[in-house]
Amino acid sequence: MTRIFNEPENFVDDQLAGFTDLYADRLRAVPGGVVSRQAGEPQVAVVIGGGSGHYPAFAGLVGPGLATGAVVGNIFTSPSAAQVYSVAKAADQGRGVVLSFGNYAGDTMNFGIAAARLRAEGIDTRIVIVTDDIASAETEQQRRGIAGDFTVFKVMGAAAAVGKGLDDVERLGQAANGATRSLGVAFSGCTMPGAGTPLFTVPEGQIGLGLGIHGEPGIRDEPLPSATELAAKLAEPVLAQAPSEAGTKIGVILNGLGTTKYEELFLLWGLIAGRLREAGLEVVDPEVGELVTSLDMGGVSLTLMWLDEELAEYWTADTYTPAYRKQKAPLASMVTGGTTETGGAEEEAIPAATAAARQLAVAVVHGLQNMAATLHAHEKELGDIDAVAGDGDHGRGMVKGVDAALDAVQHESQRGQPGAAWLLKQAGRAWAEYAGGTSGVLWGAALEAAGRSLTDERDSYSPSDYAAAAAAFSGAITDLGGAVVEDKTLVDALVPFVDTLRTGVDDGTQFGEAFAAAAAVARQKAAETAHLVPKLGRARPLAEKSVGTPDAGATSFAMIVNALAGTGRAEQRQSA
Amino acid sequence: MTRIFNEPENFVDDQLAGFTDLYADRLRAVPGGVVSRQAGEPQVAVVIGGGSGHYPAFAGLVGPGLATGAVVGNIFTSPSAAQVYSVAKAADQGRGVVLSFGNYAGDTMNFGIAAARLRAEGIDTRIVIVTDDIASAETEQQRRGIAGDFTVFKVMGAAAAVGKGLDDVERLGQAANGATRSLGVAFSGCTMPGAGTPLFTVPEGQIGLGLGIHGEPGIRDEPLPSATELAAKLAEPVLAQAPSEAGTKIGVILNGLGTTKYEELFLLWGLIAGRLREAGLEVVDPEVGELVTSLDMGGVSLTLMWLDEELAEYWTADTYTPAYRKQKAPLASMVTGGTTETGGAEEEAIPAATAAARQLAVAVVHGLQNMAATLHAHEKELGDIDAVAGDGDHGRGMVKGVDAALDAVQHESQRGQPGAAWLLKQAGRAWAEYAGGTSGVLWGAALEAAGRSLTDERDSYSPSDYAAAAAAFSGAITDLGGAVVEDKTLVDALVPFVDTLRTGVDDGTQFGEAFAAAAAVARQKAAETAHLVPKLGRARPLAEKSVGTPDAGATSFAMIVNALAGTGRAEQRQSA
Repeated sequence: MTRIFNEPENFVDDQLAGFTDLYADRLRAVPGGVVSRQAGEPQVAVVIGGGSGHYPAFAGLVGPGLATGAVVGNIFTSPSAAQVYSVAKAADQGRGVVLSFGNYAGDTMNFGIAAARLRAEGIDTRIVIVTDDIASAETEQQRRGIAGDFTVFKVMGAAAAVGKGLDDVERLGQAANGATRSLGVAFSGCTMPGAGTPLFTVPEGQIGLGLGIHGEPGIRDEPLPSATELAAKLAEPVLAQAPSEAGTKIGVILNGLGTTKYEELFLLWGLIAGRLREAGLEVVDPEVGELVTSLDMGGVSLTLMWLDEELAEYWTADTYTPAYRKQKAPLASMVTGGTTETGGAEEEAIPAATAAARQLAVAVVHGLQNMAATLHAHEKELGDIDAVAGDGDHGRGMVKGVDAALDAVQHESQRGQPGAAWLLKQAGRAWAEYAGGTSGVLWGAALEAAGRSLTDERDSYSPSDYAAAAAAFSGAITDLGGAVVEDKTLVDALVPFVDTLRTGVDDGTQFGEAFAAAAAVARQKAAETAHLVPKLGRARPLAEKSVGTPDAGATSFAMIVNALAGTGRAEQRQSA
Repeated sequence: MTRIFNEPENFVDDQLAGFTDLYADRLRAVPGGVVSRQAGEPQVAVVIGGGSGHYPAFAGLVGPGLATGAVVGNIFTSPSAAQVYSVAKAADQGRGVVLSFGNYAGDTMNFGIAAARLRAEGIDTRIVIVTDDIASAETEQQRRGIAGDFTVFKVMGAAAAVGKGLDDVERLGQAANGATRSLGVAFSGCTMPGAGTPLFTVPEGQIGLGLGIHGEPGIRDEPLPSATELAAKLAEPVLAQAPSEAGTKIGVILNGLGTTKYEELFLLWGLIAGRLREAGLEVVDPEVGELVTSLDMGGVSLTLMWLDEELAEYWTADTYTPAYRKQKAPLASMVTGGTTETGGAEEEAIPAATAAARQLAVAVVHGLQNMAATLHAHEKELGDIDAVAGDGDHGRGMVKGVDAALDAVQHESQRGQPGAAWLLKQAGRAWAEYAGGTSGVLWGAALEAAGRSLTDERDSYSPSDYAAAAAAFSGAITDLGGAVVEDKTLVDALVPFVDTLRTGVDDGTQFGEAFAAAAAVARQKAAETAHLVPKLGRARPLAEKSVGTPDAGATSFAMIVNALAGTGRAEQRQSA
């Protein structure tokens, strides 16, 4: 609902006054609309327009690389011919004018009258009408213009900006329109300023497929679909209407109609992008956001423009308007690979390590090999446990983490003589980087903490040092993760494991035996998580469903320490 | 209402997947959030974050000149310490990390834990907490962070981008927070994805003054104010909380909370900008739009940051993120004066005119002088007539138009020997440019049309030529304006005037007498518009109210032709 206004009938003038105040450094108010203050070489004037209520269309799209001027009509009402004429006269730089707008009867009439007047005064004036909405008519020329307005304006504005002549700008606008197809859905209607009831409504829990941007009839009402279904409902009909001789490059707009949030648009984009790529298309500079709205209407539209070389050039060109800014220069320093280069990207030198630390490093490598073998063997089992009440990716995440950690320590061992602390640090970094998810971050931080606890500077390492490293490992996880015992997480196995190990070591039990005893406790505690209700994290909405199944993180931890119980004993004998 | 999702509990992950797909060329997904792909000289890492549902905050603000990374929590939920730690580790470039976020208990705790962990690993980590919401507490340190998040992030990101060290970036962040004050109002609540009812509500027809961005209590509920009242309700309390030693330069954000439209924000901006300037403040690079939202909440907040030299430098600096892009370069070619320079801006040469055309030009100047005197004398009367059912600016608009036209023709007469057609063309252009409104455009086009009809190439001008010029004048207005007789416009006096003049001339009546007769008809027809209901234009909502009052445009036209009836006779004798 529109809530900010003084006199409703002055809404358009009042908002335009604020808009031109805000952008007074780049736009000039003229009777009927706004024109760009851009100077320099004269260009073909691209004058766009239509009714208000569609911001950023039309006034928000005036500036370098896009429109020269915009005519601002009343809400959802064509501007008068006098307004069009006035803005076009102000925008004209002596190289002719293209008037462009969506295909609505009032706009066609008023822009047409203005064009005749401008021509009578010797200003060469062309008209490019946008007809992108595939839901509105069978034949292209009869279709309405919706968010495809933007692709057509963008191409013409970019062509004018590089000095193209009137014939070329008009031709490119027609080509852009011929290559552009859109389809929209509405979730809810919109309300005029000061009105008590909406201009039109969409039944709650329904969508209006193909509904126009002023409530014009669509194809049909349907029940509200899932996001995946909605992606198909938008993409498939538009793809089916590809122009003849369409190539494989497409410019895309996923346009929000007013009150549909950007987060929702991003979610939908992820699903539509996949479909477009599956269809063999290369997506070029997609735009997801509000470009042609309809007051406070809920809804979204998908626009595809099939690009040839020329259209691609103008679609990707720089522009800078109040509402739409695109510049290549600030992105020039971006790294396009899989990882971000940071300063000082050369590999760090391996710090000096004592003989004892280097010997313990061998145990770290063996331990990770053992862990990797265990996790690979149990990947599916861990995934199945996680899938009962989670997203089922725990086995995969742990495998990715341990593989990355093992790669890292083997790489370090080949390039120098690292100590155990250094290897654990590298293992932790790699695990966190590649495993993904909170469990990856926790395992990574825990391995690093264990390494810091040990250090590579000691002449010998005692069972008490190993117990301290285990406590540091555990402390990192409880600090960062915030979970306590009985939250149904990894911590339910981890904390009893560390406590048992510490007690055994303090009692003078041989380390391998103390470790095995602690591992047995971890196995038991992990199994007992089956009766718990999860308290933290994503699984919460599905909490009840998880009762009867143990926690996946506790289970994988217990598997690992039990596998290490053998390794731990063997290495202990070597290094003690 | 949030309508696009698959499983509600996966909403945040799913939207982040789409977002990182869309901006994969500039952002890298890491566990817990996103980091910039920017390379180059190492910088202090500015890591921002908080719960989701606030787009563009926080992930939309990552990029050159702003944040290095953003932590993405669940909707309205602090990210975990593990997420913060993970993003900060990925963002760190070896020059230290500033964590910055709004002052909420969960965020303070989780960012704090992560900071401790990062410091334990040798990464110098600072914390800058944003506390801008003056409605939330008396003491600054206890206040919540709302859209002031943006000013603080912006200043720190810009400082980091120019290579400032950790101490400076932290200091500037604290200074920005200390200089920033905000106040918001809510019009309506917001609904979590998949939820059937809103998280909180604002009673219909009320506003929640000072309401937080997650529905936290505000100061009080009040009836929905007019836009002018709302401007005061936001601006006055924020101005009253100016920091001590505040200067006169301010950065401003007028922030939309979700479903409040840009048009509404622009309207409000016009009113707030006036108040700020009246308070003696210089507004620097104001931002009007969505920067920190709250799902589909309706509402708006005003943020002021009082700028010293340093803060002004970083507030106005270039940046380029998915949601916020600001570049000085594309605006460099803008003309900042009152008019737009277009190519070939030198004055056009006055075309050659015959002796008859130059003689007729004298009549044009005299005629405009006569019109100007008449309109100045009746300015108030015309304004009063217009105010009955319109905005009361008709008298003012006509005076501005005729004064500009008279200036233009006097200027032309001084610089050369123009003909009547040339002068009418210049008069029309000036009138349209300066009068404003549709009537200005119509009068301007009509004068130009009359000039084109006459031309400056004839050896003599006959009464029939004058009648044809009057018809051209009328044709321009009916073509462009689209009005017909009985629409209650200027046309009701204009068309009978032209018809009567043509009939008189065709009958061989002396021109001055024919003109006087036509003027008398115009006066009568203008008076008769009192009984009509307006059909076109802005007056329509007040249509009934206007019955009993004549149309202002018809009245001013009748005044003018009756004044000219004397002049017309005098000049006719000279030039015939």
